[in-house]
Amino acid sequence: MAEISEEILKEVIKKRKSQTHKGDYGRVLLIGGSENYGGAILMATEGTINSGAGLTAVATHPLNLGALHARLPEAMFIDWRDTKLADLIKKMDVVICGPGLGMSDLAKQILVILRRCISEKQTVVLDASALDLISQDKTLLPTNAGHLILTPHQMEWQRLSQIRIPFQTDSANIDALNQLIPDSNAILVLKSNHTHIYDGTGQIFVNPIGNPGMATGGMGDTLAGIIGGLVAQFGPGVETIQAAVYLHSLAGDLIAKDNYVVRPTELSKVLPKLMKKYSEMV
Amino acid sequence: MAEISEEILKEVIKKRKSQTHKGDYGRVLLIGGSENYGGAILMATEGTINSGAGLTAVATHPLNLGALHARLPEAMFIDWRDTKLADLIKKMDVVICGPGLGMSDLAKQILVILRRCISEKQTVVLDASALDLISQDKTLLPTNAGHLILTPHQMEWQRLSQIRIPFQTDSANIDALNQLIPDSNAILVLKSNHTHIYDGTGQIFVNPIGNPGMATGGMGDTLAGIIGGLVAQFGPGVETIQAAVYLHSLAGDLIAKDNYVVRPTELSKVLPKLMKKYSEMV
Amino acid sequence: MAEISEEILKEVIKKRKSQTHKGDYGRVLLIGGSENYGGAILMATEGTINSGAGLTAVATHPLNLGALHARLPEAMFIDWRDTKLADLIKKMDVVICGPGLGMSDLAKQILVILRRCISEKQTVVLDASALDLISQDKTLLPTNAGHLILTPHQMEWQRLSQIRIPFQTDSANIDALNQLIPDSNAILVLKSNHTHIYDGTGQIFVNPIGNPGMATGGMGDTLAGIIGGLVAQFGPGVETIQAAVYLHSLAGDLIAKDNYVVRPTELSKVLPKLMKKYSEMV
Amino acid sequence: MAEISEEILKEVIKKRKSQTHKGDYGRVLLIGGSENYGGAILMATEGTINSGAGLTAVATHPLNLGALHARLPEAMFIDWRDTKLADLIKKMDVVICGPGLGMSDLAKQILVILRRCISEKQTVVLDASALDLISQDKTLLPTNAGHLILTPHQMEWQRLSQIRIPFQTDSANIDALNQLIPDSNAILVLKSNHTHIYDGTGQIFVNPIGNPGMATGGMGDTLAGIIGGLVAQFGPGVETIQAAVYLHSLAGDLIAKDNYVVRPTELSKVLPKLMKKYSEMV
Repeated sequence: MAEISEEILKEVIKKRKSQTHKGDYGRVLLIGGSENYGGAILMATEGTINSGAGLTAVATHPLNLGALHARLPEAMFIDWRDTKLADLIKKMDVVICGPGLGMSDLAKQILVILRRCISEKQTVVLDASALDLISQDKTLLPTNAGHLILTPHQMEWQRLSQIRIPFQTDSANIDALNQLIPDSNAILVLKSNHTHIYDGTGQIFVNPIGNPGMATGGMGDTLAGIIGGLVAQFGPGVETIQAAVYLHSLAGDLIAKDNYVVRPTELSKVLPKLMKKYSEMV
Repeated sequence: MAEISEEILKEVIKKRKSQTHKGDYGRVLLIGGSENYGGAILMATEGTINSGAGLTAVATHPLNLGALHARLPEAMFIDWRDTKLADLIKKMDVVICGPGLGMSDLAKQILVILRRCISEKQTVVLDASALDLISQDKTLLPTNAGHLILTPHQMEWQRLSQIRIPFQTDSANIDALNQLIPDSNAILVLKSNHTHIYDGTGQIFVNPIGNPGMATGGMGDTLAGIIGGLVAQFGPGVETIQAAVYLHSLAGDLIAKDNYVVRPTELSKVLPKLMKKYSEMV
Repeated sequence: MAEISEEILKEVIKKRKSQTHKGDYGRVLLIGGSENYGGAILMATEGTINSGAGLTAVATHPLNLGALHARLPEAMFIDWRDTKLADLIKKMDVVICGPGLGMSDLAKQILVILRRCISEKQTVVLDASALDLISQDKTLLPTNAGHLILTPHQMEWQRLSQIRIPFQTDSANIDALNQLIPDSNAILVLKSNHTHIYDGTGQIFVNPIGNPGMATGGMGDTLAGIIGGLVAQFGPGVETIQAAVYLHSLAGDLIAKDNYVVRPTELSKVLPKLMKKYSEMV
Repeated sequence: MAEISEEILKEVIKKRKSQTHKGDYGRVLLIGGSENYGGAILMATEGTINSGAGLTAVATHPLNLGALHARLPEAMFIDWRDTKLADLIKKMDVVICGPGLGMSDLAKQILVILRRCISEKQTVVLDASALDLISQDKTLLPTNAGHLILTPHQMEWQRLSQIRIPFQTDSANIDALNQLIPDSNAILVLKSNHTHIYDGTGQIFVNPIGNPGMATGGMGDTLAGIIGGLVAQFGPGVETIQAAVYLHSLAGDLIAKDNYVVRPTELSKVLPKLMKKYSEMV
């Protein structure tokens, strides 16, 4: 088990080369945001856009369109019931599914479409209700994805792995992950005060930073968005996931220096500055 | 009668412990925001979220959804006509009812649902039109709540207590409060230039700070939101209410140093910084 | 003819007294904002709220509700087709009618309602398309208002007064104003690079400041809003109007120090700070 | 082939004269923003308004109205299906068509209307899907415009010119431009890491600045908006286009000093300050 350090940011966040265009920084699709949880997909999208994804699209309930563009004109929109969603999924480098998705039949159908359309060159980040739906029906797992990243908090992991929280030891978690997704291309980001990252080969990484001011709604959605943004730019290796988790907490710690509560939307705002700093370190 | 001082902030606003998660900082539901007064519930919600509540949900007219998420993606949304409102109320630690609620039949029905669903582990903050509706029909009081906090301004208190403003003396107010809510678990926050707080045991606390730049629409809604946010984190004791009232005025005084009018939305923005400062004082 | 100076701000903008509440700072209703010109009423409302009105309501096309509250939760909303508009008008201290109103039949009906409901304790600020509609039909003038303030630019004044721009001399303007509104309670704010203010008694005041970076859409709407905000607080005297015109240009000059174009929304943001400064000068 | 330098900004961006009004700074209409790409037209409009256009109107899908005014109350709105669009086009100095326009039949019809209504005193900026639609049907080119500015990226230019990217040499590009638009009043802004500007007389200008943090969705939309804003104020000469391209990159470089990714909306915010600086240099 290794502790993640600031070094991972220097390593992963590369200085951009001049002969590049937005396509080089990845296409990310975020799926989520029901009538009740529209804010979750907005916060995830803020994480993705502020962490530098090349192109970002959002599939959500049409009720969320106005707020999406009021906050984030950079994001493209698609009604999540639109039959073109299937084709859009196929064009993406990364799909983040789950923030504010909800447990409706439509949400389940979307997972079915995702499973059907995803292929091995793509990465899927599964978060929140996407994980809960998969807990109910394991066949919804988009196993054809080249890389699968699961980002449950402890209760979601309990539902998915059937391991109750007190028994979520490293070895139990690794076994459960390998059983759930036998290929070694899966990564589990188990969120807690000290988030653990498990990859399919048995490596474990622990996040030593972060603060309790981050204990507020939307923090996990934002992390999912940052993971997607970094994978789009730096690939789906476990180093990228470590960098995303560390960056998220580092940004939270920066806000918490002066603020009692860390609003997720404030956290996302400082990402471009933090990433700049680390991209120039050697 | 005691004057509230800065000390109450040091006492109430605790440094967060590291082994905590958002559930530890309380679930708050805000109910209000008719077609005409949608801004009121938004301003209350900004008070709640910026003062650090763990999870915040808003039951409001569906017309307000777009602006809610454009300003506050951190908030969950429910259409206030949704039959799931009753179940949602049951899951909350604090319910703030009233900002922009209006006097419609629907508003009345919501108070009936609130009264039916609330229980003794929960705190209810009643503000604005919720108080006016109760003035018309006392049976709407959600007396099953573990703690009831009323936040009328003087005219609303006149309607509720039948005491005309010039006769709203401390002893008259205490008597009226005890008559209205015989249990000692009620707190009256009587808003004026020097807001008085009365608890059910006869204690009286006076707010010595604040400024006339705060005399603008939405200031009371914001206070209701802050009260809910602090109760969610620090419990429903009268110290928490004192802290909320004092914090609200302190933030207003900070803005008023440089601004003729104190916009409620600006006031809410400085809450995380002020709270940070006092959480670290001993 | 007198040149307005900074002195007017010290004189008009009074330090607020502590024993006051929002009702003491006036109720303002803004009417305007068609489907096509919704932004105009938003910018006017930003002027009103940032200049310190106690309570602000907006009657506009329902399409504008979302953006109104996304920007300005402080404002109350009423659908401008709502039959309760007539009653609302009666409760106001100041009504600003015109920004983005448009030339529709509905706009005309609103002027009819305004004329019918307004009374002598109230001030009406007429701007933009309200003036153009009155140009077509003089009976739409709300002559029962205690004070009438017209804020045309030169072309609108040409249509209203029938004086072509090159012939808009001071004496011609005064004659036309007195003919249009025989009572001496009318004030004409004739907007140009050096806005002139004419009152019904023949006084003339010229604004010496301002800058061409302010030559951008929405600047006039913002001025109408500021006039309403100051009248609500400091009464409808010609000094208040001078202060509003000067304050608007002073804010514009402040922004223009660092900015090529002065966005109206940026201008409104600095009003609370500027007003604070002058409220404390003797 | 000449390299664009900072000098072009001093030359083009003129200090505004005091005897001017908003009409002197041009009327700009932006057309675009389908259900899926509403953010594109918002970002273009931010470029136009922040670069100082006198009056700005937006023809877009009605779904985008709320976000438009939440971000930009300065912009007027028209439903892009509104039959009054044709008349509105006739009143404009500059029409920017394309950002987020999409490839629908309606989009095509809009190009037909644009072609029919535009005349020689007007400038048209064609961007994004407008160019792709013209690639499919050359008769959609609004050739009656006094000045035509095309702003394709390399792939859009490939579709329009039939020159594959590796073969897009200066001489091939000039030939293709002259063949496409035989009059010498056309300018091609071929976007890449080092954007080239070609005018109808064979001049070539290369942009030496910019940075790869700008490789993110919406950057091109913002440039189209800035081009329109500057043409509205400084005329359609090739110097204006050089200034717009250089200003866009300079703003991007300013943001990139401290930020890993350059969000287009952040870029637009610094335009008024940059333009101020250059307007005062001799």
